Amino acid sequence: MIHTDALVIGAGPVGLFQAFQLGLLGLSVEVVDALPFAGGQCMALYPDKPIYDVPGVPMCTGRELTQSLLKQAAPFLPATEGEGPHAHRHLHLGHLVQGMANAADGAWTVTTDRGLTFQAQSVLIAAGAGAFLPRGLGVAELDGAPNVHHHLPEDDSVAPPWAGQHLVVAGGGDEALSAVLTIAQTAQPAHRPSRLTLLHRRDVFQADAALETALRELIAQGSVQLEIGLPQSAERESATDGDAVRALNLLGADGQTRSLPLDHLLVRLGLSPKLGPLSTWGMALERKQISVSTASFATSLPRVHAVGDINTYPGKKRLLLCGFHEATLAAHALALALRPDAPSHLLYTTTSPVLHQRLGV
Amino acid sequence: MIHTDALVIGAGPVGLFQAFQLGLLGLSVEVVDALPFAGGQCMALYPDKPIYDVPGVPMCTGRELTQSLLKQAAPFLPATEGEGPHAHRHLHLGHLVQGMANAADGAWTVTTDRGLTFQAQSVLIAAGAGAFLPRGLGVAELDGAPNVHHHLPEDDSVAPPWAGQHLVVAGGGDEALSAVLTIAQTAQPAHRPSRLTLLHRRDVFQADAALETALRELIAQGSVQLEIGLPQSAERESATDGDAVRALNLLGADGQTRSLPLDHLLVRLGLSPKLGPLSTWGMALERKQISVSTASFATSLPRVHAVGDINTYPGKKRLLLCGFHEATLAAHALALALRPDAPSHLLYTTTSPVLHQRLGV
Ligand SMILES: Cc1cc2nc3c(=O)[nH]c(=O)nc-3n(C[C@H](O)[C@H](O)[C@H](O)COP(=O)(O)OP(=O)(O)OC[C@H]3O[C@@H](n4cnc5c(N)ncnc54)[C@H](O)[C@@H]3O)c2cc1C
Ligand SMILES: Cc1cc2nc3c(=O)[nH]c(=O)nc-3n(C[C@H](O)[C@H](O)[C@H](O)COP(=O)(O)OP(=O)(O)OC[C@H]3O[C@@H](n4cnc5c(N)ncnc54)[C@H](O)[C@@H]3O)c2cc1C
Repeated sequence: MIHTDALVIGAGPVGLFQAFQLGLLGLSVEVVDALPFAGGQCMALYPDKPIYDVPGVPMCTGRELTQSLLKQAAPFLPATEGEGPHAHRHLHLGHLVQGMANAADGAWTVTTDRGLTFQAQSVLIAAGAGAFLPRGLGVAELDGAPNVHHHLPEDDSVAPPWAGQHLVVAGGGDEALSAVLTIAQTAQPAHRPSRLTLLHRRDVFQADAALETALRELIAQGSVQLEIGLPQSAERESATDGDAVRALNLLGADGQTRSLPLDHLLVRLGLSPKLGPLSTWGMALERKQISVSTASFATSLPRVHAVGDINTYPGKKRLLLCGFHEATLAAHALALALRPDAPSHLLYTTTSPVLHQRLGV
Repeated sequence: MIHTDALVIGAGPVGLFQAFQLGLLGLSVEVVDALPFAGGQCMALYPDKPIYDVPGVPMCTGRELTQSLLKQAAPFLPATEGEGPHAHRHLHLGHLVQGMANAADGAWTVTTDRGLTFQAQSVLIAAGAGAFLPRGLGVAELDGAPNVHHHLPEDDSVAPPWAGQHLVVAGGGDEALSAVLTIAQTAQPAHRPSRLTLLHRRDVFQADAALETALRELIAQGSVQLEIGLPQSAERESATDGDAVRALNLLGADGQTRSLPLDHLLVRLGLSPKLGPLSTWGMALERKQISVSTASFATSLPRVHAVGDINTYPGKKRLLLCGFHEATLAAHALALALRPDAPSHLLYTTTSPVLHQRLGV
């Protein structure tokens, strides 16, 4: 059980800035995201595209914005040494928040699918369009198999699970093609698969032209095999062997079914946001958005605020800068509620020694 | 008469971002500020101090933020070549907005103290704590004299009015000391005054220690004269001579009055914000702030919005990021009001060809 003043659901741009503002106001904070990386839509959907309307930043990419927000929040979500590029204290990645229930004294108990439990004095929902979950192949036998993956390893100094084995990558879009290229070009030869197959339902890709050109070259060289077929079912080992998938049964264009043996399967069909558990927590919703007050971005549940793309109010625009404002007002309202005796006049980061101490500057 | 969709009163950080958002939404925009430079409080009060809570900018100074906002707004307030560092098209510096009156078809006629008149379809008040006006010496005879100045020249490639003459700088704070140091160290000898005097009411300064050390050195070297005394009155030339001030009458610590002859006087007692004309325009006010709706930041006057430090609503915090949000929602509301036939769904700067064209990217 992790105790905290504030739990932030979502490590998108708004969740990250929410953590910064809560920390700045002296509250302890924990952040959870279903994705294995921070940045929400900016990282999942447009990491390398330019954004022009972040105030005071004439141009930055989704990735650059995420890195700046992580750096800004670092006094409260410090990077942890030697645990990979995405490891930060108080930031729990790869966890889907599932349950939220009342605890004693107005607090909330929040649980994740991978077994974390938080006791939080307040909850800030910065869940965007919902939890980003990888799209599946629609083959039931793949569920829960230990050798089915969705993300590239975060830390490339460690050997990936498929090193020296046969890896099948499924998909025909940018996510699949860029994964195949990254894996085929892995710097350390010992980290490469012994065999690399790209599986797609037809010999046409919906991907960036440069990616496709590079891929076609690898196929021509023989470093990547292209397999065309529609996965129908999968064969799994007996439970004693960790229940791994050993082969996919594919339906070919010729109407024949054949088996594709594999050691590891990397499904790269993109991410799709699922509102999922949030919709069952009993908050007032309006067309899948959470209704909030504009003074504090409070929801209809006590000490639960909603900020960023997930909320709605008159005039709402789903823009980054709106979420940043909402997160700031929500943090101020919560600081007042949770620390009623603290001085409540506005402090500037430029001049306040208290804020400088919290920021470590 | 300048015709425009939107007139922004104030070129502080929020006024600059307001111009960006209005331009992005396809509206024409003009910006007016009483100061001879853009940036409002950030430039007038803390140009070299760090700000830590601009979202996505872990640290920047007031000056850096201003420069970034000017760069971001440049597609709509382009810099004009060869007119000094602060010259931008559609940005009118050194003009105090004084009058605002109803014009035909719901438009507003807006006038400045130096004779500009705008016919604006909408007005955005981004006036902060009011117009920044220089504090005076309290000597009536100085009013309107052509050789009394308050600001350093913006463009140092042009000779200042006091080149080769006797300049008296009045003040004892950072503004006065840094002006004396800048002038004494002017790169081009021909641009320096022939004689430079610092006038203060006592031999104690309220200034940065490093500034004071540097100043005391110049005094010891004889490049700056220090004059202690309280200005009581001034002597002006006959009207035929442009009515210039020729001498200040000072009351010394010894109770004696003496005359300090001068060619130019630079009064550097800091800036003080004056709400001034705004308070007479008939908007609903609450403790000197303008009351606004949080959906559009509209005031009680039609097509007049108020954004940034000047406005108030439940939850309001006088922070930069709140002003940026307010300016964005105000721009969207006005775009809808002034262009009812334009498509109103939200466009992203990242992906919209229409926005890319407006931004010139
Ligand atoms: C292509 C594109 C271009 C854009 N361009 C711009 C632009 O130019 N300017 C601009 O201002 N905006 C732009 N946007 C919008 C901007 O990206 C969003 O406004 C912003 O990402 C919203 O941030 P957020 O943190 O609220 O939500 P998100 O970025 O959606 O992040 C929410 C996070 O919460 C996580 N989450 C949700 N539910 C759970 C759960 N139950 N458990 C665990 N984790 C959960 C998700 O996995 C996700 O990581 C663009 C969006 C797109 C798609
Ligand atoms: C020392 C200090 C430190 C700060 N630190 C921070 C910080 O760390 N973070 C943060 O978010 N905020 C900080 N702030 C607050 C921040 O500077 C303000 O919120 C911001 O400047 C408000 O911007 P604005 O554009 O609304 O108003 P202003 O910056 O006040 O600009 C208003 C402009 O309008 C002009 N104007 C007004 N009336 C007229 C008129 N009638 N005619 C012509 N021109 C007119 C003025 O001359 C002025 O230039 C700080 C403020 C100070 C003083």
